[in-house]
Amino acid sequence: MSATVSPLAPKSFADPEPVEGVRLAVAQAGIKYKGRTDLLVALFDPGTTVAGVFTTSKCPSAPVEWCREALKGESARALVVNSGNANAFTGLKGRETVSETAKAAAKAAGCKKREIFLASTGVIGEPLPPAKFTAVLDKVVADAGAARPLDAARAIMTTDTFPKVLSRTVRLGDTDVTITGIAKGAGMIAPDMATMLSFVFTDAPIKAQVLQGMLSKAVKGSFNAITVDSDTSTSDTLMIFATGAAAKRGAPKIKEASDRRLAAFKKALKGLLTDLAHQVVRDGEGARKFVQIDVTGAKSAASAKRIALSIANSPLVKTAIAGEDANWGRIVMAVGKAGEPADRDRLAIRFGDLLVAEKGERVAGYSEEEASAYMKREDIVISVDLGLGRGKGRVWTCDLTKEYVAINGDYRS
Amino acid sequence: MSATVSPLAPKSFADPEPVEGVRLAVAQAGIKYKGRTDLLVALFDPGTTVAGVFTTSKCPSAPVEWCREALKGESARALVVNSGNANAFTGLKGRETVSETAKAAAKAAGCKKREIFLASTGVIGEPLPPAKFTAVLDKVVADAGAARPLDAARAIMTTDTFPKVLSRTVRLGDTDVTITGIAKGAGMIAPDMATMLSFVFTDAPIKAQVLQGMLSKAVKGSFNAITVDSDTSTSDTLMIFATGAAAKRGAPKIKEASDRRLAAFKKALKGLLTDLAHQVVRDGEGARKFVQIDVTGAKSAASAKRIALSIANSPLVKTAIAGEDANWGRIVMAVGKAGEPADRDRLAIRFGDLLVAEKGERVAGYSEEEASAYMKREDIVISVDLGLGRGKGRVWTCDLTKEYVAINGDYRS
Repeated sequence: MSATVSPLAPKSFADPEPVEGVRLAVAQAGIKYKGRTDLLVALFDPGTTVAGVFTTSKCPSAPVEWCREALKGESARALVVNSGNANAFTGLKGRETVSETAKAAAKAAGCKKREIFLASTGVIGEPLPPAKFTAVLDKVVADAGAARPLDAARAIMTTDTFPKVLSRTVRLGDTDVTITGIAKGAGMIAPDMATMLSFVFTDAPIKAQVLQGMLSKAVKGSFNAITVDSDTSTSDTLMIFATGAAAKRGAPKIKEASDRRLAAFKKALKGLLTDLAHQVVRDGEGARKFVQIDVTGAKSAASAKRIALSIANSPLVKTAIAGEDANWGRIVMAVGKAGEPADRDRLAIRFGDLLVAEKGERVAGYSEEEASAYMKREDIVISVDLGLGRGKGRVWTCDLTKEYVAINGDYRS
Repeated sequence: MSATVSPLAPKSFADPEPVEGVRLAVAQAGIKYKGRTDLLVALFDPGTTVAGVFTTSKCPSAPVEWCREALKGESARALVVNSGNANAFTGLKGRETVSETAKAAAKAAGCKKREIFLASTGVIGEPLPPAKFTAVLDKVVADAGAARPLDAARAIMTTDTFPKVLSRTVRLGDTDVTITGIAKGAGMIAPDMATMLSFVFTDAPIKAQVLQGMLSKAVKGSFNAITVDSDTSTSDTLMIFATGAAAKRGAPKIKEASDRRLAAFKKALKGLLTDLAHQVVRDGEGARKFVQIDVTGAKSAASAKRIALSIANSPLVKTAIAGEDANWGRIVMAVGKAGEPADRDRLAIRFGDLLVAEKGERVAGYSEEEASAYMKREDIVISVDLGLGRGKGRVWTCDLTKEYVAINGDYRS
């Protein structure tokens, strides 16, 4: 947690009501940070379904492996999350910590071990003793219901400068249901499944398999379309928990992915995940600019996204944006290096609505002054049309500043 | 050209004799820089053969396209290089500039247009009027022979802080021949063929096709194994010119790639290219550390190199090195995100000779003090053994510092 809040942070934070069927608690477990909460426990009513997507890293953390296995049970009664230590690359000890923690949480919550879900974020490779959890879990579980979503979002922060929380109300059948999500991000953000950590809670009664299908689809254009620094985390975890509490108020139980009554919920979930993903970018380490990259006219959607990511991950593009320099030549470079079909002489590049280059060269009447004025904005849109086909892709990123280097030069010390 | 020389620069610069059959000249053409040379012309004796490798960018510069075509003639009489403007993404105008420059150079040198080779380095997208060359070429060609290799290396610098030049003498048959190379680099360095610009001259009499085979092979473990910032340039050009002047002193004419008399020359060429590539890394923008990444035990050599590049290009690994932080967890992350076969529980990581992690966790008796002491060195070796197979790969890179961001935040202004 930084003393300075990102200039791209929202001007105010909502603090929604907890979702019905979810009871939150936070605590100071002293895992790494002093004088702040670093442990989140969410208890779920019996009958809560669960779905999740995780990092594609070949070196995933112990909690990621635990959750992948536990998901097979389709049922969740508690979520335990800590910040300050990722419990990644911690070998057998890491697996023991996960198992001991799940055991203690299951005992405290009165459920099965495999109904416990776990996530950890922070330093990689540092052993995380199970006692950090077992010593406090009974008390935290007893406190359940005392914390609100904003407290939960605060407890999972690492180098984040602001808590990320969002809530939507949407119709399911004739009943209002709630979807509330929290997320943390900052660095090591190039999700290939989800961002570092994000948890979504809803009172909608939705079968686990249906939930999983929706989540896997919604993640593509949201968390999987952001990058801060091209570095994919060992701990990326996005999970959704559906308590079904709204059924008591008449919400229909959804058992099929094709159920038309899900339409509004699907849209709201996608919107919520996209907004949370944007918040992660707006709190990218050292970020001063929020950047949208739109690629159109590619041979395919996959090709468009790869080109968009090549631009979004280019250190030279990102430092030029940090310097408010309308250096569109670097966009050309990043298109050229992507390894995807591109024809220099068909390329068009825009900053916002301003066409700066087309047909392989700078436009006639190009105004450096206008382009530079645009770059001074906080939110920047860069559009590239390849002129080859109908594939399009959109990703979001931030600039690369000296502060990013400073934050990451001495993260562990 | 920066006022501050990289701390990784060689302590002294050799200034070798020009290669027999090559006459160098430099001039101040005022293309972008004031008060320094920015134009290099090399004239070659009749009979000079040539080979080259170029960027794989889909948006190559006009000079790269020209050279690719001219190489088919296998004969070179002059090389014209400018710094300050890359003549890339300059459309039809860029091609006209290249054609006009080649025409003027051919007239001045008394040769065919396709015996002229061209390279440009600097800003992308800025038109480069042919008059910048045509106005001065007659005079520069008349001056040929007045400049030395160190002058040539200086004339092609952009954000480089020191000139890169190297010379070797090697036996060909019973005769000593010379190989002298110059290079420029600094930023936008992730060659997928060659670095930004490097030119090698030799008096050895070697047929163009043989030269091409040797160059294409030697580039793999040298220029194609370095990265400063993962950004591949539109202008990467590496060319070798063989004047054959040593034939008069008895050097055998080499017409077959399999000629055993080439062995020493091949080895020397590979060594020279590797050393020049290292110099490029040592002058990476903002670099304070020279880093070698060794990956062993991979499924294949290609897999090992991709993992090595994933580590070398990771902003989080590079900023940790800048901060002298022994953050080996980020090495795990970079291995995990590479998309190549890897097994967390077989991974071993070393800093120099110091084993820090193996079998999926930190080693027993790990000493943060020892690891931190190692990170304070200027030259750092990071070794990763995957424990899966026999594939190995080696790449070189530098750290990512605030100076990189500062240099690239306002490069054009």
